[in-house]
Amino acid sequence: MSPLALPPTDTLELVHADGVVHVTLARPQARNAMSAAMVRELVSVFEAVRERRDVRVIVLRGSGGHFCAGGDIKDMSAARSATIAPGDPDPIAVMNRQFGAALSVFNAAPQAVIAVCEGAVMGGGFGLACVADVTIAVEGAKFRLPETSLGVTPAQIAPFIVQRVGITHARRLAVTGARLGARDAVALGIAHRYAEDTGEAERLLAHVIDEVRRCEPHAVALTKQLMLKVAAVELEEVLDEAARDFADAARSDAAVEGMTAFMQRRPPAWAPATKEPA
Amino acid sequence: MSPLALPPTDTLELVHADGVVHVTLARPQARNAMSAAMVRELVSVFEAVRERRDVRVIVLRGSGGHFCAGGDIKDMSAARSATIAPGDPDPIAVMNRQFGAALSVFNAAPQAVIAVCEGAVMGGGFGLACVADVTIAVEGAKFRLPETSLGVTPAQIAPFIVQRVGITHARRLAVTGARLGARDAVALGIAHRYAEDTGEAERLLAHVIDEVRRCEPHAVALTKQLMLKVAAVELEEVLDEAARDFADAARSDAAVEGMTAFMQRRPPAWAPATKEPA
Amino acid sequence: MSPLALPPTDTLELVHADGVVHVTLARPQARNAMSAAMVRELVSVFEAVRERRDVRVIVLRGSGGHFCAGGDIKDMSAARSATIAPGDPDPIAVMNRQFGAALSVFNAAPQAVIAVCEGAVMGGGFGLACVADVTIAVEGAKFRLPETSLGVTPAQIAPFIVQRVGITHARRLAVTGARLGARDAVALGIAHRYAEDTGEAERLLAHVIDEVRRCEPHAVALTKQLMLKVAAVELEEVLDEAARDFADAARSDAAVEGMTAFMQRRPPAWAPATKEPA
Repeated sequence: MSPLALPPTDTLELVHADGVVHVTLARPQARNAMSAAMVRELVSVFEAVRERRDVRVIVLRGSGGHFCAGGDIKDMSAARSATIAPGDPDPIAVMNRQFGAALSVFNAAPQAVIAVCEGAVMGGGFGLACVADVTIAVEGAKFRLPETSLGVTPAQIAPFIVQRVGITHARRLAVTGARLGARDAVALGIAHRYAEDTGEAERLLAHVIDEVRRCEPHAVALTKQLMLKVAAVELEEVLDEAARDFADAARSDAAVEGMTAFMQRRPPAWAPATKEPA
Repeated sequence: MSPLALPPTDTLELVHADGVVHVTLARPQARNAMSAAMVRELVSVFEAVRERRDVRVIVLRGSGGHFCAGGDIKDMSAARSATIAPGDPDPIAVMNRQFGAALSVFNAAPQAVIAVCEGAVMGGGFGLACVADVTIAVEGAKFRLPETSLGVTPAQIAPFIVQRVGITHARRLAVTGARLGARDAVALGIAHRYAEDTGEAERLLAHVIDEVRRCEPHAVALTKQLMLKVAAVELEEVLDEAARDFADAARSDAAVEGMTAFMQRRPPAWAPATKEPA
Repeated sequence: MSPLALPPTDTLELVHADGVVHVTLARPQARNAMSAAMVRELVSVFEAVRERRDVRVIVLRGSGGHFCAGGDIKDMSAARSATIAPGDPDPIAVMNRQFGAALSVFNAAPQAVIAVCEGAVMGGGFGLACVADVTIAVEGAKFRLPETSLGVTPAQIAPFIVQRVGITHARRLAVTGARLGARDAVALGIAHRYAEDTGEAERLLAHVIDEVRRCEPHAVALTKQLMLKVAAVELEEVLDEAARDFADAARSDAAVEGMTAFMQRRPPAWAPATKEPA
């Protein structure tokens, strides 16, 4: 087999060693918020290794003590102010749907995908945690879906959360806003393993990689594909519709109020005036 | 927006304050057993608030220390003895299916639905607990599905239980009769939160309502709808068939023996002669 | 009703008493590995009692301190070396699919099925544990899916595991190889009850049988059937495809290496050289 060529990336740090591709989200100044560029680069990495059975594991983590703070607000603002030619789809819906398509790619990777979640695990980062085969939650991690408190919806993420934890817990997260610590995330099944600190997370990671290596890679890919087939429930269709609804919500008065209140550091019109719980 | 007009009700007490509609099942003499009238009134309340985004939360609870002891036996007897014109559907099936249709309405409410479950949570009451977004189980609550021990089936309830807890735990409940305390209900995922007593239940309820209020109501409605779409598995079709099967079971010799034994306070023919466990 | 006639069996011990059919897998020399003959005999027992509502419970367990060590390697070797006439299906796929068909029969039994799992619960034995209504895991039990470490897939078992524990935990088991103790099996939902030792398992078994007996048998059968309908997700189609993929995997170089390494008691080419964790 030819040596593995990983794509050039600006927003990700990539290390390939010993059958493991370590991917670090590298926008620490923005708590690794996923820009459109980062989403594209992540997809290109997963595509580059898709047919490579010599790559056994993809490890996802963030730089600077955070996993990922969600989508990048600049991209969203650009999409919001772009002019739409008659007959063209809303660019907000297009951008939203692209993120869902990326989650589908990560979800279906033939390799074992391991996510190490510390610090902010928000919005799109929460979604990323939900499509890993093994998710390690480190003490101090804050799993959050801030969307509904901003007047929009976790459109492309919500369906993956339902698959991850079932409708019973998903609907509770939907109506209450999801505010989970590392132990809660494990208890619900968002994550699989709890680590007290970074050191324990590293030991768990090494142990999981060792377990994966004992399994034959083609057999792992086939088994994972088979299991995902049982769980598939016309997810793609739901994601299409969710993107259109998201664009409508994002252009509503409520979303404008939500974003404005967020930037003005005040509670939005629909919320109690008291400070939000930590 | 016009002031909210709630429908007149005989079997429910309604209080609307501060964006929250408190619904209390008010037939304490029958441990709030759901008569056909109560089911109709509950549906009318949910319909009256459906399009009202100023109503953020619906709280369901029972009067007199019980949540709900299931269906009303008088309605069932009336349906059983009604004459059926040729070509007409069995009135037992019709009544049964109407209850399932009501559960579907409660399940799909755009508001956050919170159920506070204490005392008897049986049959239809068990079903109600399974369609709330946040269910609080208070110590001493008895979650029960007495149907199979009476020779009939939890026809319209069983599908919602499968969605609630998954097939693995649902099938165990099906074959053993479900007899769960408050902590068991939380462990299985029938309920979300355990409260030691009524005081703690009130504090939890206030906390959950506060969390809901921080989220924008249109966004909550959209997110909940999106999540329910992922979980939907042709439930309506299953419920149709279940109603017909229920009517057949309810007219069988076994069901007659079950009801008779229940009224005579003796074990039915198929059960061991010893006393039932508490 | 005529007295129950159970089929003659070579690989199973059958005892019918008091509405309970006790089935013991009886190939202790092979840790009760499921030969094609044993699969056929198990199906014949389930078919013999299918219409008998006087049989309330089927208890599955193994002889000699083990539940079941998986498929029988001799049958597999025979299928591998059989000549395939042009146009005929691969005999490996046929044999694999027959095991899945058997799991579907066990899964859909109208009676309550209780599995008592001790010692080896591997491969097909793991699958058997996943289709019982109540599974008791006894301390010391080793739940394992050794397939991927041998270069093949748990083809007919994996879909039942997804139904049993959901995709979140199933995918973790897929990529790491499943290595679970009795408590882990209960925590994930593979099993329902944990027993410290055989004595406690017997007491739990008696208690569960007692609970089943309080329920009316036709109502139990209907309720279980209704619940399985909600959970069904074109499983049969997935199982068909899985059998074909399994045959391909079983004839691959990887599988040959896996089987050879296993017989030579050395790690296969894809695994680290170190000893496998216990």
